[in-house]
Amino acid sequence: MTRKTGRQFFANPGPTNIPDSILRAMDRATIDFNDPEFMEVFDAGVAGLKRVLRTGSEIFLYTASGHGAWEATLVNLLSPGDTVLVLESGWFSEGWAEMAAKFGLKTQTVPADWRRGVDPNAVAAALRADTGGAIKAVLAVHNETATGMAMPLADIRGAIDAAGHGALLLVDTISSLGSLEFRMDDWGIDGVVGGSQKGLMLPTGFSFTAVSAKAMAAHAGAQLARHYFDWSVMKNRPQRSFVGTVPVSLFYGLRESLRLIELEGLDQVVARHHCLAEATRRAVRSWSGNNGPQLFCLDPARVSDSVTAVLMPDGFNADAVRRTALDRYNVSLGGGLGKLGGQVFRIGHLGDLNEPMVLGTLSVVEMSLRLNGVPHGKGGVDAAMEWLAAA
Amino acid sequence: MTRKTGRQFFANPGPTNIPDSILRAMDRATIDFNDPEFMEVFDAGVAGLKRVLRTGSEIFLYTASGHGAWEATLVNLLSPGDTVLVLESGWFSEGWAEMAAKFGLKTQTVPADWRRGVDPNAVAAALRADTGGAIKAVLAVHNETATGMAMPLADIRGAIDAAGHGALLLVDTISSLGSLEFRMDDWGIDGVVGGSQKGLMLPTGFSFTAVSAKAMAAHAGAQLARHYFDWSVMKNRPQRSFVGTVPVSLFYGLRESLRLIELEGLDQVVARHHCLAEATRRAVRSWSGNNGPQLFCLDPARVSDSVTAVLMPDGFNADAVRRTALDRYNVSLGGGLGKLGGQVFRIGHLGDLNEPMVLGTLSVVEMSLRLNGVPHGKGGVDAAMEWLAAA
Amino acid sequence: MTRKTGRQFFANPGPTNIPDSILRAMDRATIDFNDPEFMEVFDAGVAGLKRVLRTGSEIFLYTASGHGAWEATLVNLLSPGDTVLVLESGWFSEGWAEMAAKFGLKTQTVPADWRRGVDPNAVAAALRADTGGAIKAVLAVHNETATGMAMPLADIRGAIDAAGHGALLLVDTISSLGSLEFRMDDWGIDGVVGGSQKGLMLPTGFSFTAVSAKAMAAHAGAQLARHYFDWSVMKNRPQRSFVGTVPVSLFYGLRESLRLIELEGLDQVVARHHCLAEATRRAVRSWSGNNGPQLFCLDPARVSDSVTAVLMPDGFNADAVRRTALDRYNVSLGGGLGKLGGQVFRIGHLGDLNEPMVLGTLSVVEMSLRLNGVPHGKGGVDAAMEWLAAA
Amino acid sequence: MTRKTGRQFFANPGPTNIPDSILRAMDRATIDFNDPEFMEVFDAGVAGLKRVLRTGSEIFLYTASGHGAWEATLVNLLSPGDTVLVLESGWFSEGWAEMAAKFGLKTQTVPADWRRGVDPNAVAAALRADTGGAIKAVLAVHNETATGMAMPLADIRGAIDAAGHGALLLVDTISSLGSLEFRMDDWGIDGVVGGSQKGLMLPTGFSFTAVSAKAMAAHAGAQLARHYFDWSVMKNRPQRSFVGTVPVSLFYGLRESLRLIELEGLDQVVARHHCLAEATRRAVRSWSGNNGPQLFCLDPARVSDSVTAVLMPDGFNADAVRRTALDRYNVSLGGGLGKLGGQVFRIGHLGDLNEPMVLGTLSVVEMSLRLNGVPHGKGGVDAAMEWLAAA
Repeated sequence: MTRKTGRQFFANPGPTNIPDSILRAMDRATIDFNDPEFMEVFDAGVAGLKRVLRTGSEIFLYTASGHGAWEATLVNLLSPGDTVLVLESGWFSEGWAEMAAKFGLKTQTVPADWRRGVDPNAVAAALRADTGGAIKAVLAVHNETATGMAMPLADIRGAIDAAGHGALLLVDTISSLGSLEFRMDDWGIDGVVGGSQKGLMLPTGFSFTAVSAKAMAAHAGAQLARHYFDWSVMKNRPQRSFVGTVPVSLFYGLRESLRLIELEGLDQVVARHHCLAEATRRAVRSWSGNNGPQLFCLDPARVSDSVTAVLMPDGFNADAVRRTALDRYNVSLGGGLGKLGGQVFRIGHLGDLNEPMVLGTLSVVEMSLRLNGVPHGKGGVDAAMEWLAAA
Repeated sequence: MTRKTGRQFFANPGPTNIPDSILRAMDRATIDFNDPEFMEVFDAGVAGLKRVLRTGSEIFLYTASGHGAWEATLVNLLSPGDTVLVLESGWFSEGWAEMAAKFGLKTQTVPADWRRGVDPNAVAAALRADTGGAIKAVLAVHNETATGMAMPLADIRGAIDAAGHGALLLVDTISSLGSLEFRMDDWGIDGVVGGSQKGLMLPTGFSFTAVSAKAMAAHAGAQLARHYFDWSVMKNRPQRSFVGTVPVSLFYGLRESLRLIELEGLDQVVARHHCLAEATRRAVRSWSGNNGPQLFCLDPARVSDSVTAVLMPDGFNADAVRRTALDRYNVSLGGGLGKLGGQVFRIGHLGDLNEPMVLGTLSVVEMSLRLNGVPHGKGGVDAAMEWLAAA
Repeated sequence: MTRKTGRQFFANPGPTNIPDSILRAMDRATIDFNDPEFMEVFDAGVAGLKRVLRTGSEIFLYTASGHGAWEATLVNLLSPGDTVLVLESGWFSEGWAEMAAKFGLKTQTVPADWRRGVDPNAVAAALRADTGGAIKAVLAVHNETATGMAMPLADIRGAIDAAGHGALLLVDTISSLGSLEFRMDDWGIDGVVGGSQKGLMLPTGFSFTAVSAKAMAAHAGAQLARHYFDWSVMKNRPQRSFVGTVPVSLFYGLRESLRLIELEGLDQVVARHHCLAEATRRAVRSWSGNNGPQLFCLDPARVSDSVTAVLMPDGFNADAVRRTALDRYNVSLGGGLGKLGGQVFRIGHLGDLNEPMVLGTLSVVEMSLRLNGVPHGKGGVDAAMEWLAAA
Repeated sequence: MTRKTGRQFFANPGPTNIPDSILRAMDRATIDFNDPEFMEVFDAGVAGLKRVLRTGSEIFLYTASGHGAWEATLVNLLSPGDTVLVLESGWFSEGWAEMAAKFGLKTQTVPADWRRGVDPNAVAAALRADTGGAIKAVLAVHNETATGMAMPLADIRGAIDAAGHGALLLVDTISSLGSLEFRMDDWGIDGVVGGSQKGLMLPTGFSFTAVSAKAMAAHAGAQLARHYFDWSVMKNRPQRSFVGTVPVSLFYGLRESLRLIELEGLDQVVARHHCLAEATRRAVRSWSGNNGPQLFCLDPARVSDSVTAVLMPDGFNADAVRRTALDRYNVSLGGGLGKLGGQVFRIGHLGDLNEPMVLGTLSVVEMSLRLNGVPHGKGGVDAAMEWLAAA
């Protein structure tokens, strides 16, 4: 087999492109996690995470992937028999609900078309109907990685307030944090789930939960069994995080990640993601002519700036396109998840990215459509270039 | 402050010295965890872990530290109200028991002096007394990192067999695997808990559980709630491991780790750890003259080959010695855990280690004893050199 | 200033894109250059270089850039007053001639239009005219990095043979080796000058000279003063190379470089460079419409497969285009050298490269032309994609 | 073969221990050496080198090892037939003289016992005798790496001044710079030769020459042929250094090197080298009892703080000791050079070093003496510990 030459273009929506300087920062000998030198790096990392979350809340970290932080939020805040209101968005809202059920929680769903997402009015209605206060938490995925749709969190907050309901608002920001605008305190989020491997541009390795004062109060009475993810255990440790050994290398990476993010400026990070996402969408819209593939998300106000899901025309397989891109051109695209398998491919455009990386990726997508005989409108890359040159 | 020059000597009993070639192997761009290229690396890693465990059993891996694997073993194998028999060894056996209690399990302890460990006859007696079969699992820590004592697992297996009891034997090998002899199948272990950050010479990042057929049968009926660590969820994934994103970098490190271990030969790895541990013990025994510090573990047949715990003479603080070693000589020693805080320091000698690393460490310990006015016999380093030159 | 995000696209014609695995291989502690472990790596590296050069000749290496190897060739093979025949190709043929003059050699030039290069018949004529045999060596640059033109070496050899002249044929392969076809022995080259930093995909650090038996005989009588580059000194050293300390890290990189080249296959490396170069040329030809920029090299048989020089339309500055590409899009293009400064920009396409890297680069060039108001034909990237999809 | 485990102790007197942070700084993609980003790093590196040299003089750098900088100094400052006065110190003073002869210079030597070095009075006498002013330069090796002897440069300067002779004072600081005290301007040095691979803690890759105003004036009239090392060529380049491509990676390493050196403080760097060297010498002095090995350098005022040469007792081979240290314990010692081959081994103690690294090394030397049956006094490591604990 011919070796794949050159650098792989990683357009999978997470994990994502890790800058070399972050990789190098983690490429170091280990250190005692109670060493004062490490504690300084750790504390600075936690302080920086708060700035990225725009919050003054406490943060708990886990050696875990994002699913661990999901679980941490549930087991620390809820008791057997509690109801959670799940805002349907796609594969990941389904997954979080499924997890809740495994722990003996009742799940109620605000249903939605995956191509459009929930109506905030429907959320308000569901909460108003809960006159008995059974619903203890609302679970929302900020950016549904499976469909490329972003949830308007301020509107969700508004819906809860309008309903006058006291449920906690728990939000998964795994594929939005460090890419899309997010304001934990301004938006009244009670529990935030995040991970290292997306907008923070680190490898998979730690996830975390930021917890509002209201949620910490709820934690005091929560009855679900827990230990590895137990905030009460963590609070007695020097790091106020992690049960067991601390993954020290990642915090040297986090230090560099925060330096890069803040050197660029958080607002500029968000603006850059928007600009590159829009270039991607313009390419897809060009391809959608001639009965070609189209944007999966139908609501222009909700298209995600970190990942674009592309729906194939009937009769054409998304995975064949992905395979061409990977095997022939060394470009890794994301596949369709769950019921979208084969129908959708996804172009990740988050993390440490620039224009030629996006344009190289879009060029390969365009060639791969052609090589697989997928009907499509011409000029996708040209449309992207036009947008980017004018940006 | 003067910068610490030279390479830090990391004589903390874990995480441990990571060979440069492993660090470099992990210092790479990310990859899709479903990419066939990664699946090949992953599968080879799992196969290699089985060789190191000397088992044909199934392995489940988690993005978690060792405590996560502890929890995985409990929640996948047990039901509320089950009893576990904990073999007291020290800080870590206490911790595992505490975790079990958090999940509504009953814990019964075979008590032991931390300087000697449990008597297998006492284990047999406890099991014989359990005529109702309430005890579903025996929890044993192979190498108690806090006290530098190794449990004779074959004898424990013998005690269970002698009692004719059907409890599962669950063993924590976190600080023994890849350092001390371990034979899962030969010794009839039902559940093994291991982590990346000790004898495998990787950073903290994944932990795992190997599960015997008998244990897999028990899993089918286990009722504790779980999701992040649920083997039944994992079994449906391509990796048969990990709920959520896979920490891909670590598997490139694991590939290199296994290459190094098998290039040296597993038996030789064990023999080397013994040789370097014995050098350390000979130094400590020299220092123990003149009412000096002594080996914490009193049973010469159970002294650990991966970590040596050293008990200070009355009135002298172990942490002062550690501080001198770290601040003045850039040598990181382990501290006393739990009730041993201040009384014990620990010299880790596991992972990627050689004679001058050990001798440099012992030299610094000897100088740090002197600088803190701790009484001690002379010639510790000389005794270690004598042993090593003759080895 | 906004930080430059994402990975820089390095389309400068050398040094070039270094694969991560080569960077990692060099990222290691030092080693004694007489250690048997290193000698094995070194010897394997030299053997591999011979395979890449397709030669059985001896190789001498220097801690030096390519200019050092130029100098080595002159001072080891020639005597004061000797004449060298320089085949004009551009900036680098001029530079080599200038160096020769500094050492008291007489230089005679076969002149050429830089956009076309020398006529082999003119070479033959010059040699025939040298009835006294004053010309001791012919200096040819295989790939003129400044103009993007490749010299037909087999034809040059033919011209020398046709003239029946005994001059040595000395060839600079710095920007061709590992990218363009090259056959030292088949083509009867007497001295080859090469460096680490182009097709070998290493950093700048060592250069080398391969020396035919005929050239070694000439060395015996060569009178120019030398020491640092003296082959006679080197022949007495274990490495038969390097006066002074050996740059050991680079040889760990070379081992990986050779592994990658031979995994891909040298013929496939050459074919890939051709394919990506042709994509680049098709883009330039599209842009050349509408009085746009054009290929600098006018001879379609001589266009270089490792670098494309692009001539700007009158009145437009190449460096402005380069600045836009670098400052706005993080793409590094090469500038015009010597008298071509400002008139030419150069797109390097050598080393570890793939389609999306080239297409991302071409996209940025196309946007940069637009942003600088440079007239150009449309569809450059489209033409490149068309070629690559059909390739 | 059993793999060598653990980290190699590199006690070879150069190249030397490279801190991980320097290795990581160099482990990066390439960059155009005319990119403003690089120029900033380059300029800061040159400014830092001047601080380390304690000079305001101009510096020229070469892609070359130290021998290249030797050659640069000669060919830029001298003319055929000029005489250089070589101060004998050992292998390296011989080598520099040999090189000078190759370029047609006359060499006159102030002879010395290699175990004591030249008498400054003899230097003054030789210069006074040169009434015709034939001697254009005095060549002195600051730290003779082969013998572990440091030359008192201020005294040499004094001798030249006392003689009232106008010769340039050219000094090789390759194994002293960044380890021993050195003051170019205060000591009136006209040309300094240095390299990257010793006290600067970088790999072999660049060397340099600092040039006083007096020497620059001499350069104007120097007639030796040169190009690769020609300062006049370099002065027209943006970097005012390097003929040809610039080894960019090394300057990212140099930036980190300077950061480390200046964080520690140059005076403290010198003091640390002295402290660790003295520990080494005390060990050797202990071993010298019982007719054991002894310090090669007999002048206690001239013993080198960067390398200790140890003379074996008659009938015992230094290389056997080195082989034991390397093969059995993974410690790399230096061998005897030239006529000292087999009689001397050398312990390097320069660069990024600390106490346990030195003590681990000395322990291995002591065991290797024992294993080879070399008679020696006991307690070498003990003596070193005693010194270091009291330091």
